[in-house]
Amino acid sequence: MLSAWLLPEHIADVLPAQARRVEDLRRAMLDRARGYGFELVIPPLLEHLESLLTGTGRELDLKTFKLVDQASGRMLGVRADTTPQAARIDAHLLNRDGVTRLCYCGPVLHTRPAGLSATREPLQFGAEIFGHAGLEADLEAAELALDCLQAARAEPLVIDLADARVLRGVLAGVPLDAAQLQDVVQALSEKDAAALAELTQKAPAEARDALRALLRLFGGDEVIEAARRELPQRPLITQALDQLQWLARHLRAAYPGLRIGFDLSDMSGYAYYSGARFAVYGAGSSDALARGGRYDEVGAVFGRNRPAVGFSLDLKALAEVGSPPPLPAAIRAPWGDDPALRAAVRQLREQGETVLALLPGHELETQAFDCDRELVQVAGQWVLRALPN
Amino acid sequence: MLSAWLLPEHIADVLPAQARRVEDLRRAMLDRARGYGFELVIPPLLEHLESLLTGTGRELDLKTFKLVDQASGRMLGVRADTTPQAARIDAHLLNRDGVTRLCYCGPVLHTRPAGLSATREPLQFGAEIFGHAGLEADLEAAELALDCLQAARAEPLVIDLADARVLRGVLAGVPLDAAQLQDVVQALSEKDAAALAELTQKAPAEARDALRALLRLFGGDEVIEAARRELPQRPLITQALDQLQWLARHLRAAYPGLRIGFDLSDMSGYAYYSGARFAVYGAGSSDALARGGRYDEVGAVFGRNRPAVGFSLDLKALAEVGSPPPLPAAIRAPWGDDPALRAAVRQLREQGETVLALLPGHELETQAFDCDRELVQVAGQWVLRALPN
Repeated sequence: MLSAWLLPEHIADVLPAQARRVEDLRRAMLDRARGYGFELVIPPLLEHLESLLTGTGRELDLKTFKLVDQASGRMLGVRADTTPQAARIDAHLLNRDGVTRLCYCGPVLHTRPAGLSATREPLQFGAEIFGHAGLEADLEAAELALDCLQAARAEPLVIDLADARVLRGVLAGVPLDAAQLQDVVQALSEKDAAALAELTQKAPAEARDALRALLRLFGGDEVIEAARRELPQRPLITQALDQLQWLARHLRAAYPGLRIGFDLSDMSGYAYYSGARFAVYGAGSSDALARGGRYDEVGAVFGRNRPAVGFSLDLKALAEVGSPPPLPAAIRAPWGDDPALRAAVRQLREQGETVLALLPGHELETQAFDCDRELVQVAGQWVLRALPN
Repeated sequence: MLSAWLLPEHIADVLPAQARRVEDLRRAMLDRARGYGFELVIPPLLEHLESLLTGTGRELDLKTFKLVDQASGRMLGVRADTTPQAARIDAHLLNRDGVTRLCYCGPVLHTRPAGLSATREPLQFGAEIFGHAGLEADLEAAELALDCLQAARAEPLVIDLADARVLRGVLAGVPLDAAQLQDVVQALSEKDAAALAELTQKAPAEARDALRALLRLFGGDEVIEAARRELPQRPLITQALDQLQWLARHLRAAYPGLRIGFDLSDMSGYAYYSGARFAVYGAGSSDALARGGRYDEVGAVFGRNRPAVGFSLDLKALAEVGSPPPLPAAIRAPWGDDPALRAAVRQLREQGETVLALLPGHELETQAFDCDRELVQVAGQWVLRALPN
């Protein structure tokens, strides 16, 4: 029992200074989402495993903690991502015909951390737009993500755009089973040209050339032009490139200071996204602070195949960017049962002040809050007096 | 897969209207706690099982979902209560000498619901004071709980006071093993006189008489006087009764409309609490909305045995009391890439307004928000125009 205070690896407490920052960010994100008309929903942490994992790919399965429901004997999962839950709520519970905008904010659990310094318990905030297939929804999702990161003072921001349809277009007609496709995706993610060549030995020369080209297709605006020259002229690919250009043009107009990049071999979430996707990086963050994109197929298993686009971010990771807010100013007050004192304390608290009652015997302790005033009795009245720094 | 949208029993989504109410309450509770000088912490959902369950009794063990950590092979638990985590943070991480006030707000999971209509995933808000053994801390915890329930418009409020030391005093010197004690506690909880008589056949007559008396000792102020007459004159019992009277007197002074009751056979959390405890009931709630009390021993396993008192409540249950806030007013705006339109939308959102961009083709849809104004172009300027109700 010597180690009862030890936490599992990649699991940590958020202590007061950092928790203040997380809570400030949480409110700022939810308020911004509301400003766009996103409605908050609170899906549960626990669901039947098959509801959590339908249509989301193997990656999410491996990330999901499983447990047995004593009540039903069925296998439950603790959500590793809230997005499929939002799709379920849109499809089944709200069941509206028109556009529905939903947002959420709550913990998710991962069996394995996403990286060496990643937490296994992100605090996921996200926003999703259901019911509009046009690029305007993709743009709105990216704009809200950028607004949120601006609110978190994570600037300068860099957005990387990619599109799952480029690889689908390149591989159209190439016979690959699911495992082989997975290997190709992984080789592209790792920019491993040798593995890629090995895996596609039997593919037509056009596909092999295009895959090799993908590895080089990252950078600025020139990437789109290069892609038009080097990739096959197929409708799926052309559509993806046109849309990426449209998004980049509109984002540049809305965020003059934003750096926009393209990475056509970025494969993160390949099994999941169906269209354009984006990753936003901020000052001093080596990993993306927000990720999103279009995933039109996810709601189908819940009975309605609606267009869908959105993004999510981890508030704990975001709180590491920038510094915690300063200790809030507070007022010290003696403890006592004088009704006038208690009324004065109550009134100050109702005005939004923090009033620390000094419990008997603890009058000389250092306080966690920065007390710049104290409540003292002068001529029978309780009044505020400034404290020296 | 027909039922992919079905949730496990006693698990539910919180949909937009109710989620708005939960979020409003969440902010109100955290702001009120900050007004008292409680610092927010965010402990993890997952911990090593033995850290979650040390010194908390069998009840919490049965309530806790267990799972295996793939990274370490160790058994983990998903927290069923945040209080022991706050005690761990106070004892080990903050390790301050003086008074520490901590609060938290996050989901907990229960393997079994607490009642027929209870959720297995409460959203637990709570506040704890560490480091002060005096009743002033008990009073402060109860006052914050009452302030929170007032903020939730759950009035009229009723507070029931009880004290674990009364039963300990009654049973002092009576030979009972842990299982027998558990049975006695259960018989008292169920006010089952027959079972109680059966279980304590071999106890001294004084103890048996006192146990029988406990079953009747609930009601108003008269209960304390009756207890002084009917229970043995032992220091532990007298101290508990004196303290309950002190608390009642101070609570009555601070909350004139509050109804105060005593229930000396209320055994909820008997294994856990070490002193006075309370339960607050509100308008139209059959179960307590908030529960709290003193639990001085919990921090010991983390290396520091600090006095501790606090309370917690379930924001989801609290949101059921009272009605959801009305749909927030919003502004409709056409979608377009006119920079003047986009600037007007941005400015309104920065002012705290909700502006719904009508995505192309969705102009005629009913909106989830109550749009009372629209953004229209008049003589080249984007201006707000009232919409008919």
